[in-house]
Amino acid sequence: MSPKITTELLKHLRQVMKNPRYVQEPVQAYIVPSGDAHQSEYIAPCDCRRAFISGFDGSAGTAIVTEQHAAMWTDGRYFLQAAHQMDSNWTLMKMGLKDTPTQEDWLVSVLPEGSKVGVDPFIIPADQWKRMSKVLRSAGHDLVPVKENLIDTIWTDCPQRPCKPLITLDLSYTGVSWRDKIVALRSKMAERKVMWFVVTALDEVAWLFNLRGSDVEYNPVFFAYAVIGMNTIRLFIDGDRMMDPAVREHLQLDSTLEPEFKIQVMPYGSILSELQAVGAGLSPKEKVWLSDKASYALTEAIPKAYRYLTPYTPICIAKAVKNAAETEGMRRAHIKDAVALCELFNWLEKEVPKGTVTEIVAADKAEEFRSQQKDFVELSFATISSTGPNGAIIHYKPVPETNRTLSVNEIYLLDSGAQYKDGTTDVTRTMHFGTPSAYEKECFTYVLKGHIAVSAAIFPNGTKGHLLDSFARSALWDCGLDYLHGTGHGVGSFLNVHEGPCGISYKTFADEPLEAGMIVSDEPGYYEDGSFGIRIENVVLVIPAETKYNFKNRGSLTFEPLTLVPIQTKMIDVNLLTEKERNWVNEYHQKCREVVGAELERQGRHEALRWLLRETEPLAPAQ
Amino acid sequence: MSPKITTELLKHLRQVMKNPRYVQEPVQAYIVPSGDAHQSEYIAPCDCRRAFISGFDGSAGTAIVTEQHAAMWTDGRYFLQAAHQMDSNWTLMKMGLKDTPTQEDWLVSVLPEGSKVGVDPFIIPADQWKRMSKVLRSAGHDLVPVKENLIDTIWTDCPQRPCKPLITLDLSYTGVSWRDKIVALRSKMAERKVMWFVVTALDEVAWLFNLRGSDVEYNPVFFAYAVIGMNTIRLFIDGDRMMDPAVREHLQLDSTLEPEFKIQVMPYGSILSELQAVGAGLSPKEKVWLSDKASYALTEAIPKAYRYLTPYTPICIAKAVKNAAETEGMRRAHIKDAVALCELFNWLEKEVPKGTVTEIVAADKAEEFRSQQKDFVELSFATISSTGPNGAIIHYKPVPETNRTLSVNEIYLLDSGAQYKDGTTDVTRTMHFGTPSAYEKECFTYVLKGHIAVSAAIFPNGTKGHLLDSFARSALWDCGLDYLHGTGHGVGSFLNVHEGPCGISYKTFADEPLEAGMIVSDEPGYYEDGSFGIRIENVVLVIPAETKYNFKNRGSLTFEPLTLVPIQTKMIDVNLLTEKERNWVNEYHQKCREVVGAELERQGRHEALRWLLRETEPLAPAQ
Repeated sequence: MSPKITTELLKHLRQVMKNPRYVQEPVQAYIVPSGDAHQSEYIAPCDCRRAFISGFDGSAGTAIVTEQHAAMWTDGRYFLQAAHQMDSNWTLMKMGLKDTPTQEDWLVSVLPEGSKVGVDPFIIPADQWKRMSKVLRSAGHDLVPVKENLIDTIWTDCPQRPCKPLITLDLSYTGVSWRDKIVALRSKMAERKVMWFVVTALDEVAWLFNLRGSDVEYNPVFFAYAVIGMNTIRLFIDGDRMMDPAVREHLQLDSTLEPEFKIQVMPYGSILSELQAVGAGLSPKEKVWLSDKASYALTEAIPKAYRYLTPYTPICIAKAVKNAAETEGMRRAHIKDAVALCELFNWLEKEVPKGTVTEIVAADKAEEFRSQQKDFVELSFATISSTGPNGAIIHYKPVPETNRTLSVNEIYLLDSGAQYKDGTTDVTRTMHFGTPSAYEKECFTYVLKGHIAVSAAIFPNGTKGHLLDSFARSALWDCGLDYLHGTGHGVGSFLNVHEGPCGISYKTFADEPLEAGMIVSDEPGYYEDGSFGIRIENVVLVIPAETKYNFKNRGSLTFEPLTLVPIQTKMIDVNLLTEKERNWVNEYHQKCREVVGAELERQGRHEALRWLLRETEPLAPAQ
Repeated sequence: MSPKITTELLKHLRQVMKNPRYVQEPVQAYIVPSGDAHQSEYIAPCDCRRAFISGFDGSAGTAIVTEQHAAMWTDGRYFLQAAHQMDSNWTLMKMGLKDTPTQEDWLVSVLPEGSKVGVDPFIIPADQWKRMSKVLRSAGHDLVPVKENLIDTIWTDCPQRPCKPLITLDLSYTGVSWRDKIVALRSKMAERKVMWFVVTALDEVAWLFNLRGSDVEYNPVFFAYAVIGMNTIRLFIDGDRMMDPAVREHLQLDSTLEPEFKIQVMPYGSILSELQAVGAGLSPKEKVWLSDKASYALTEAIPKAYRYLTPYTPICIAKAVKNAAETEGMRRAHIKDAVALCELFNWLEKEVPKGTVTEIVAADKAEEFRSQQKDFVELSFATISSTGPNGAIIHYKPVPETNRTLSVNEIYLLDSGAQYKDGTTDVTRTMHFGTPSAYEKECFTYVLKGHIAVSAAIFPNGTKGHLLDSFARSALWDCGLDYLHGTGHGVGSFLNVHEGPCGISYKTFADEPLEAGMIVSDEPGYYEDGSFGIRIENVVLVIPAETKYNFKNRGSLTFEPLTLVPIQTKMIDVNLLTEKERNWVNEYHQKCREVVGAELERQGRHEALRWLLRETEPLAPAQ
């Protein structure tokens, strides 16, 4: 990788920072955050403004440009990558290190007195604005919204905002009609005495209307906002996609409907003025519900006294609890996904010894097998296909410069998933195509023990996922080992592979309690820099658990694995497993055999079926 | 218990709420919080204002009196007690129930427009003031500080503020002189670029100066504040206790000292005016460090721009990490405490079958045996001596009305501890003096498994205690059981039995990471309403752990039990223990035998020694 040369770009940006055409008053600093106007994790090319100005295209990073400096804040995952991708105009600010200043503190230290710090109010979340603005103000500076995005003004070949056709999902996929979702939402609004709800997250808009799109890679979403009143529905969306008869039919745009279910379609760009009009017309006690992570621009459209902000929206919470149709869809999707992976691993077992399979080839092959499955749409994230030392790079994605050839001497880690019309998958398996060392097996077995500890955990209704995180680490901790990422994240139903409000991580405290129907990943790991990476990931469904007693009638929960892909027994040191753990592995493999075996049979994939049967033999007893 | 008749008192309070002698403007509501001016958990009789005005004397509760209403907020532990102790003038607000309004919301719902809500600014913590004041202001009301405490104006027979003699602790107890503690504190202040530190918590003042007192029952503290500058030390304390030659010598009040170690002794009541003077004399960038839980009055004394507020003070954090002298003292204290409990349990075993031992008798006997030990000062909290159904009341304290007789048919739970000059103890043992049922043994064994899971846990340096909480519950959860309290709290060294900033609880996220030298309790339990309570509690010391590997060179920690009292093997269902757990019990009992056995021998307590030897026989093997 050679760094992007940014000298001219920065010069240009510094000019527009003083250009009265774009700024009311000159700004002495301009902040370029990572996100888009919907606080999305994955963003469209037209929103990759930070990558454009700096060259650094990792998933997390904030650039700040002043008259003298250009600085980039990113975290440990990206120190190396950012250093490679940025030229000497940029200073790398390594977040998480003790001596690294926060963005606010750094600004205070470099700015002349009474400076203005500009930022696009659509890109910065309201909670972050509040925090930053407070520190700057107390040091005599001002955080100011700059209406026109200054990067866009200098980005001459900026790609267009995508505006791809929509997919309509019928009841067999969603289980609940968009009308019933609106009814449920309005009842939550009534409970909180709120008159309006503003839907800003892309996956929330998609879920609410039972629509999907492909405006953003890997996430089946489309650019839109919605504003739901007690008697009105406004959908802000661009392009001729609303002309599609299937979409019109699905949204009943041309039907005679009760007025409260009539959807008013409005231009995407009119959200701010429409919301300002709502804000201006509020009577006392009429509150407007927004996520506290909604953009500063939209939050400011509602006068402070009328705002009702929560960290998780009612849609985010409802979306997380999958209904029967969604759960069944997720099961189907995971069976198909398992078929594809059985094909892949059977193929790899034959091909790897020939020395011709690179990480990229393996990733492509995985996609090829997945794309053969019914209702396949696209991948759910960039495949992490990594062998040997590359496996220790937790967010690795093979590129030609790093592409390594799989061999019988190294551990191979594949973290991949797909979007099917009936569900989203995300699975990690760690394999050895030769003979693993005793140490590799030992580490793998600790990770497996952690995986089982979470998967088999029984816990009371109302337990938050973060309370289960240590179960995944206990076996590693006993030997002085650990891994530096959370254990699990929420998974959408043909939606984003990462979604709130639940998860399993020591890093959060504000997750919502787990409840039956939620779906999360269970993915402990162990990584040895320069040597190998191990991760074992299943997507699991929260289900009620039968217990001997029932304290305070609370009821208990546990997990059912949706992912049904064999865990390589060759990597397991059976002597390190308890009897309960051995039984877990054998029962899991028995289920893979039955369920995925039947599907492989049905699809006539006999060789992959033989591979499955071989890989799911019961474990040898401990010695 | 008959309720306190409060009609006249409330009438009187409502009069002073309008009396210009006490309030600048009439207040329409007056808040009476639980605490004292130091946010203490245990308070002196003169600070029990909420109990005085309402009759309800539980440890947690906030009273609010308006012209029409009198309402009391308390939590689930105290619903019954509060209902019994308060007359019909009072409405009980059951915190934690869904329909119970917050204090702010309730005030907004009952107050006439534009009301003033009064509170003693010395009693309300600054963070709570901020929260309340915000809600009230947004509803058009005002939270106002009422300088004179209105309860004190009507409390004609209010006890005097205690002012008892001080105890000086020499280096053999504290390990570090107060001068070195001041030096360390000033270096922390310099690190944070802070010029002043205000010590408001009583245990922090006591720790800093290596002094102890007895102004508050169970907590060896004394009423005082301190303000530490980079070159000055001010101690605010009343009474002639500063005339005690031992104290003068200890604080070197009459010696020629470098000026920066010269302690200026000032009246307790002058803290506010002195702090205001400090506040008025600050130059730009001179910050003053306070706990964010310091009183509103003291926090307001410092102009906002000059405040540096943190949830944990540097003293709180330094105090939690015990040095070698303190650790050794804690070990000694726990051995003496174990001697007393061996005597007690031996005595109970003989006496209980006679049917003459009540909960109060047993508690008194425990105190008697403890008081025979060297350097005994007082109990460290009110003894929880509870048999049968009383054991299920987690914060039970026997009183004549509830006093139950111990028998061979019920489980007995004793949670007790003492202050010795060399350390603080806190231990819970659950015993059966007859034959426990299979169910009782089953529950006891799950609790024991949880206790061991925490005690034997190995975890990386930097781990916060709350991440260990689920280990204590896992065995209970597996069977659908749980307990509704945290698993552990920090323990002071001849100081408060509950101290921050560490602990083991699912309820917090803001605890400081555990480090070697910290001391916490490990006390899972199981409670069956109306039947029995089980809790097994040791005080444990955080120590470095040897592990096979050492990921990222972080090092690992584990716990060493300081409490050395046998865990009744009669209550254990050995078949439910793993081999590792059986070994843990046997090794623990072996240590009790050796260490406490030697001390019993030394003290010539031969009968108790025989009891100890009997109770620490290795467990029978599982069948």
